Amino acid sequence: MTSPVGLHRVLDPAGVLPQAASRLDASPAIGADEVRVAVERLNLDAASYRQLATKHGGNGAAIRAEVLDIIGTRGKMHNPVTGSGGMLIGTVDEVGPDSALGLSPGDRVATLVSLTLTPLAVCDGLAGWDGRSEQIPCTGHAVLFGRSVAAVLPGDVPSELALAVLDVCGAPALTARVVSRYDAPRVAVLGAAGKSGSLSLAAARRAGAGHTVGVVPTEAEARRLRGSGLADRVALADARDPVALAAAVGEPVDVTVVCVDVPGCEHGAILATASGGTVVFFSMATSFSAAALGAEGLAADVEMLIGNGYLPGHADYALDVFRSEPGVRGLFADRLSPAASGAEERGAAVKRPDRPAATAD
Amino acid sequence: MTSPVGLHRVLDPAGVLPQAASRLDASPAIGADEVRVAVERLNLDAASYRQLATKHGGNGAAIRAEVLDIIGTRGKMHNPVTGSGGMLIGTVDEVGPDSALGLSPGDRVATLVSLTLTPLAVCDGLAGWDGRSEQIPCTGHAVLFGRSVAAVLPGDVPSELALAVLDVCGAPALTARVVSRYDAPRVAVLGAAGKSGSLSLAAARRAGAGHTVGVVPTEAEARRLRGSGLADRVALADARDPVALAAAVGEPVDVTVVCVDVPGCEHGAILATASGGTVVFFSMATSFSAAALGAEGLAADVEMLIGNGYLPGHADYALDVFRSEPGVRGLFADRLSPAASGAEERGAAVKRPDRPAATAD
Repeated sequence: MTSPVGLHRVLDPAGVLPQAASRLDASPAIGADEVRVAVERLNLDAASYRQLATKHGGNGAAIRAEVLDIIGTRGKMHNPVTGSGGMLIGTVDEVGPDSALGLSPGDRVATLVSLTLTPLAVCDGLAGWDGRSEQIPCTGHAVLFGRSVAAVLPGDVPSELALAVLDVCGAPALTARVVSRYDAPRVAVLGAAGKSGSLSLAAARRAGAGHTVGVVPTEAEARRLRGSGLADRVALADARDPVALAAAVGEPVDVTVVCVDVPGCEHGAILATASGGTVVFFSMATSFSAAALGAEGLAADVEMLIGNGYLPGHADYALDVFRSEPGVRGLFADRLSPAASGAEERGAAVKRPDRPAATAD
Repeated sequence: MTSPVGLHRVLDPAGVLPQAASRLDASPAIGADEVRVAVERLNLDAASYRQLATKHGGNGAAIRAEVLDIIGTRGKMHNPVTGSGGMLIGTVDEVGPDSALGLSPGDRVATLVSLTLTPLAVCDGLAGWDGRSEQIPCTGHAVLFGRSVAAVLPGDVPSELALAVLDVCGAPALTARVVSRYDAPRVAVLGAAGKSGSLSLAAARRAGAGHTVGVVPTEAEARRLRGSGLADRVALADARDPVALAAAVGEPVDVTVVCVDVPGCEHGAILATASGGTVVFFSMATSFSAAALGAEGLAADVEMLIGNGYLPGHADYALDVFRSEPGVRGLFADRLSPAASGAEERGAAVKRPDRPAATAD
């Protein structure tokens, strides 16, 4: 009898969830609700790779040896210093009879749960990797639990773009859900030219937003966002300045979506939101106490949501928005082209610390 | 023209909200939407008082001198080291013609926004305070803004109990709002024997909960909670142990209310909640990233709310629940009696860091 959250794979300490475990059982035999994936590539998250590279002074062989050691010791690629992991790409190898993930052998998938909780074994000694980048080509296997999440990579979207979309796919789905609770609401998206921001803007419009405001921190981003046509109005403001942000948004909105991955945006988001409205915080830089005390101090009757990275159907929904919105595709292309990386990346968003920074943001 | 959030009272630095200001204008002349309160007592928050007492080795005169200096320099009682404040009690002195707070001169009130954003001046040199407790009798004035929050102290509830209720009054109001969105939902309250926990349990039942589970960490608290009759079932579990907590709750619930003020309760709360359910985090020890990544890692379609300490009518609602529920009154009395303070206080909750610990928890 297997646990849908993988408790049966936890070797040590007993009784914790796989993410909290120091060691997982990565044996290839799968339970009735599990799925085994033949791994093709690991994407370490940026924080994890940086820590390893710094520790070993950029020595690729030493970095490779330590990654091998971590995977071998822990049964998962869970950096013990940063606490972060990454994601992987592979091909479905075997599907247990009771799996509810909807996968079939031969499907090429990306995992949407962290490597920090994914049983993993490699069998090629990472021989194809020089240790010099976050992308690790490798041969091995990984196991998905009954409640894991994986997305089939679409045939019509290049892998790099698909990964960039999947990396933030919870944001447009939750934005759409919240927006659809209001009647033609006014919606503001902070960090609207970024990956999750642009997807959320498009999702808001599709879900029935009556008016959308895209907020960006620089004139260069404003120009790109205007060009995309995704926002009814583009506003320029530093989201960390509550008064300036509220002034830039103007009449308070019903839904504010925070996709700016810098600390200190809580009070501005609250101030920009009308009574009875909702703020959705996707930024991992959000401070729980700053949000709670800020709303209290401003006597603001706003509902504040912790941006959950999972909703049923989130991957398909995000890819669908991406395919059908030329404005979103254009902004992603800008971001993924080397020329666009650089000083304009602040409005990025939903950079889950245990997800790879597949793109410049 | 005054700002409803008090921007006109900010002296330094320009443009920030009052809470972020280093210095406020506490002059007694009020604007059209302001209210002046004759201060009777300050309640420093526990963290602030502890820092001052430690710094001065318990020397009351030195503690008093520093509090006087902070108020004189900053125009508010905002501890620069802890960043926290407290609340105050006083009598309404003058009400501006455009004030929407519903107060009248002569009303005895408690402020429900932090002292860290409340303009304050004292005129008695704190002569009536020996510097040895968090409770400071004093003479002076404070100013409430257009969007401040203050509650009239009820005549029929002793001040100490009323303050304990008002300290956590956002919790029952938000719990009731969330519970009423479901049809006879199953509700679990973690830390159910504490102040916010017991009020939230009672609020859940009043709002239509079909079944309530009160979770507490010790047999002694379980006994008290059973005696109160507030929960349909009392469960014993350490809320920091996700597997044990989920097992204790049993069939996943529709609404989970987290009132346990210790870190590490996010994953258990998520695991105990059914798909489509809601988790409301009132504990200030909640980690935003642990909640966001936890739900994602568990593929849990739950909505997670940051417990906002403000809802319209929250003070009256909490006092009403308190008055009409003997079980709640009993648990509060236990907590406020010296005999009950001690090892059993872990399930406390919503201890806003800038609110005074008016009771043993």
